[in-house]
Amino acid sequence: MIRSHNCGELKLADVNKKVILSGWVQKIRNKGFIIWIDLRDRYGITQLVFDEKRSPKKVFDIAKNILREFVIQISGHVIERESKNDNIRTGSIEVLVNSIEILNPSKTPPFTIEDISDGGDELRMKYRYLDIRRNKIKENLIFRHKVTMEVRKYLSNNGFIDIETPYLIKSTPEGARDFIVPSRMNPGEFYALPQSPQTFKQLLMVGGIDRYFQIVKCFRDEDLRADRQPEFTQIDCEMSFVNQEDILNQFENLISHLIKKINNYKLDKFTRMTYDQAMREYGTDKPDIRFEMKLADITKNAKGFGFKVFDSSESIIGFPIKKAANYSRKEIDYWINWVKQPQIGAEGIVWIKYNDDKTLKSSVDKFYSQDVLLKWMKTFKANPGDLVFILSGELKKILKQLGELRLNIAQKIGLRDPTVFAPLWIVDFPLFKYDEVSSRLLAVHHPFTSPKEEDIKILKDNPEKVRANAYDLVINGNEIGGGSIRIHDSKLQKEIFKLLNLSDEEVDEQFGFLIDAFKYGAPPHGGIAFGLDRLVAILGGEEIIRDFIAFPKNNSGRDSMIDSPSKIKKDQLDDLGVKIKKHLK
Amino acid sequence: MIRSHNCGELKLADVNKKVILSGWVQKIRNKGFIIWIDLRDRYGITQLVFDEKRSPKKVFDIAKNILREFVIQISGHVIERESKNDNIRTGSIEVLVNSIEILNPSKTPPFTIEDISDGGDELRMKYRYLDIRRNKIKENLIFRHKVTMEVRKYLSNNGFIDIETPYLIKSTPEGARDFIVPSRMNPGEFYALPQSPQTFKQLLMVGGIDRYFQIVKCFRDEDLRADRQPEFTQIDCEMSFVNQEDILNQFENLISHLIKKINNYKLDKFTRMTYDQAMREYGTDKPDIRFEMKLADITKNAKGFGFKVFDSSESIIGFPIKKAANYSRKEIDYWINWVKQPQIGAEGIVWIKYNDDKTLKSSVDKFYSQDVLLKWMKTFKANPGDLVFILSGELKKILKQLGELRLNIAQKIGLRDPTVFAPLWIVDFPLFKYDEVSSRLLAVHHPFTSPKEEDIKILKDNPEKVRANAYDLVINGNEIGGGSIRIHDSKLQKEIFKLLNLSDEEVDEQFGFLIDAFKYGAPPHGGIAFGLDRLVAILGGEEIIRDFIAFPKNNSGRDSMIDSPSKIKKDQLDDLGVKIKKHLK
Repeated sequence: MIRSHNCGELKLADVNKKVILSGWVQKIRNKGFIIWIDLRDRYGITQLVFDEKRSPKKVFDIAKNILREFVIQISGHVIERESKNDNIRTGSIEVLVNSIEILNPSKTPPFTIEDISDGGDELRMKYRYLDIRRNKIKENLIFRHKVTMEVRKYLSNNGFIDIETPYLIKSTPEGARDFIVPSRMNPGEFYALPQSPQTFKQLLMVGGIDRYFQIVKCFRDEDLRADRQPEFTQIDCEMSFVNQEDILNQFENLISHLIKKINNYKLDKFTRMTYDQAMREYGTDKPDIRFEMKLADITKNAKGFGFKVFDSSESIIGFPIKKAANYSRKEIDYWINWVKQPQIGAEGIVWIKYNDDKTLKSSVDKFYSQDVLLKWMKTFKANPGDLVFILSGELKKILKQLGELRLNIAQKIGLRDPTVFAPLWIVDFPLFKYDEVSSRLLAVHHPFTSPKEEDIKILKDNPEKVRANAYDLVINGNEIGGGSIRIHDSKLQKEIFKLLNLSDEEVDEQFGFLIDAFKYGAPPHGGIAFGLDRLVAILGGEEIIRDFIAFPKNNSGRDSMIDSPSKIKKDQLDDLGVKIKKHLK
Repeated sequence: MIRSHNCGELKLADVNKKVILSGWVQKIRNKGFIIWIDLRDRYGITQLVFDEKRSPKKVFDIAKNILREFVIQISGHVIERESKNDNIRTGSIEVLVNSIEILNPSKTPPFTIEDISDGGDELRMKYRYLDIRRNKIKENLIFRHKVTMEVRKYLSNNGFIDIETPYLIKSTPEGARDFIVPSRMNPGEFYALPQSPQTFKQLLMVGGIDRYFQIVKCFRDEDLRADRQPEFTQIDCEMSFVNQEDILNQFENLISHLIKKINNYKLDKFTRMTYDQAMREYGTDKPDIRFEMKLADITKNAKGFGFKVFDSSESIIGFPIKKAANYSRKEIDYWINWVKQPQIGAEGIVWIKYNDDKTLKSSVDKFYSQDVLLKWMKTFKANPGDLVFILSGELKKILKQLGELRLNIAQKIGLRDPTVFAPLWIVDFPLFKYDEVSSRLLAVHHPFTSPKEEDIKILKDNPEKVRANAYDLVINGNEIGGGSIRIHDSKLQKEIFKLLNLSDEEVDEQFGFLIDAFKYGAPPHGGIAFGLDRLVAILGGEEIIRDFIAFPKNNSGRDSMIDSPSKIKKDQLDDLGVKIKKHLK
């Protein structure tokens, strides 16, 4: 027996028991005649005592030479502590050691295994197995486990069947780039790793499975932005014989259940908002609605007053900041400089202070009378004491800028309360977007998304106005999941492919099997997929997904711990019938 | 609302209710004035009635033109059936239809969607989504879901944490061939898909996770034997601060719990057997112990009697078949021909009938007296009425032949009772095997497997005699899982690598990160992995794993439904910096 108890369970009631403990040395306090060691395992910390008088000499001598992170096994008796530590579960007792074995020594770790470590990001990634020893990461992984167990239980209880779909599938140019896998048994041919199990879950619906789910890895070979991973995990779901309303209700219940179970937090009915409204009022399709600061458009009432900047702008839009009329020039300049940074790219901010005494002071007083400004205040729903920020320019551009400005101000002034969850369905997404680069329509969601029944008639003449049966779930400004009701009619599907400028050949090559399947009685169906990494982070009250992944990759897609990707041997490539291009060797 | 009820739930109590049902048309019986349609969904079948008199004319006319596998939605009233069908849950009622919508028509399926289909294997694979509509496959997938849910619940309740390990890892020549994935962001370099999460689960133990599990896809680029898949699923587990006994007990409990919960079958304590005993008594390391027929060695008592075949053989081994002394010459010849087939490769069988009257009749009466034969009978533990089959030749070869012969006879005479589960731990595997081709030692399990403490002293001088802390779980002659206690001492690990003839460079390149990790305090640890596909099949009372996988690949690693692997576009390869060798284009 390597241990009789773990390091997190001994209590006063165990005093006098003979115990065997094993674990890592967290901390050593050596007073010369007495040595205390904090022994750590997954379950907690137990204080060990080595006493020159009460411990065997051999044991005491070994203890003197132990270092941090050694793995040791001890046996001894549980005794009551003189000075108790209420901060840890085992704080009432300690173990007087009478035998010890060093199971494994340890080099000095490259960073401290403490809640707040002295290790930088890169170092902690390289030694991720040591980082996982830290409470923060360990607890995050356990938290993730709890969330997935709860998701599985809930979905299973609701009739969803967990079905594994294949990982070695077929490359399709839809969406992002595929990772591909050369086939040795079929030389010159390649599998692709799934960007999502989309087509397979639809085939399961054609197969009559009715309700499917899977917590599944997906792969996208994208240029990585901060906090994106080339492999990531989805909670993937699909249902048959449902409409959009059924799906929104079903998964609203899932998320409410999760937040109740995991965070002990009761959610109200989820807010719903059209894509158009979200863009208009928040400048983004994933608004954080924990706070107001809604955008309002004053274009009509701000042009023609001789202020050239506004006069030459497509749109003039702003939002109020509550109780901020007393901002100093310096504070206002901070945000003016903030929007000027290249990532935001605005020219500046027009500001208006709506003073407590109802006077107005603005950066454009030269051009606008108090009456005009007061009219604007009404449009912005600003009250005395508020500050209003206004941007002008091309509508699409400034909406994005305003959305980011709004979020960052809220962050800075503490309006993004991490103890509040504000979920929101965004509905009525457009079906297509026009791509300037390729001069053609692209699917906003994916090519299997169905248009709204009532918009089918304008598909040909006004495709950009067609709304989709597509929805996103947003929590606190983060997109948590998205999905759609699929097209189950093969004629309509063909029409959509045509609008997407996919030739019959391309369609047949890439999706032939799906089109074929739809000819054998496809049921109406739809689904949703949640980004598990992000969902877990949000439920955990954080936004950095990497801290909730056991072995994440860095921003160049590398695992610096195992040093992968790496070169492979020539004969391995020979077997696969591929070679590396010369200039890369 | 697309349905108010599913097709498996309406009962007598629902009579007179107005319902909406949706599903597939399973069967149509058209009597001219009345049409019955069996409507099917995942949950069951409900009989619909279209009656010339009682249904609206338009509805009746539509019904006349409906074909098998059309997806329809109907509304109507539940009525009591005149002739009830006790075979289905909804057999007491039917639904009198008063409105109908064809949600999707269907071409005639290429095979019948019945419990016993007329479709061949290949056809059913190509149209797997239709095959899944069949009860058998659908129920298998639901069964698999139940098993995995139960595994997760049990392990989670026992303190195991479900942690996802990465899929894009590093190629190591250990074991089978890797599937590799070119990295676009790191041109000329490759990821590999994991053959198992072995190193990562060990790193999690170094990270203090203590108990880990994952139900995870693994990938091996092997030449496929029948019923092998290039991607397959493992229940992967690892524990810290345990010895072999702890692991056997923990996972014996898991399997007992599963078989109790899933099959309502109570298992006794699992049998344990050393590898040596299994080979000696059953000729295989995965014996089916639901029946006796144990092997016995008569080499010593069969040589030197002038029978050249035996005299020139390394070993002479046989086994008794109960109550088979009355086999006809034809029956015996059947098995003689059976062992002569190239896959088995024996020269023939020596047989002895131990007649009910205690006389003995054999194919070698010319050489052996009744007394000698009687002595053999004792060795074989044969009784009057039994038949004994004997093979001779090279020990290793005939053990394999006898193992297969024994299993196939038992199969034929009905001793492999599918309602009985006989689990068995095989322990004390050898650590190494000598590979004739490469003239070097190979790891039987994998290079991280620890040798038995007491055998470490013979590591250098007699490595092939070293026993490992390795174990397999066998149920009914199938290997269900296997694992080992790992080496946690980096010095010992280095020694093993050396015996495996891996250079420091190779070790550093392939496992450097693991060796490094072990320097920072690795705990004693060990684990096990179960083949989920096979486990589910066995619990389901079958042995063909393909029927328990939603979208399996065929024996050349192809998915004939999506036609993958496939050619990909040149610019995709260009992006990756790889090209296909000329002769393959």
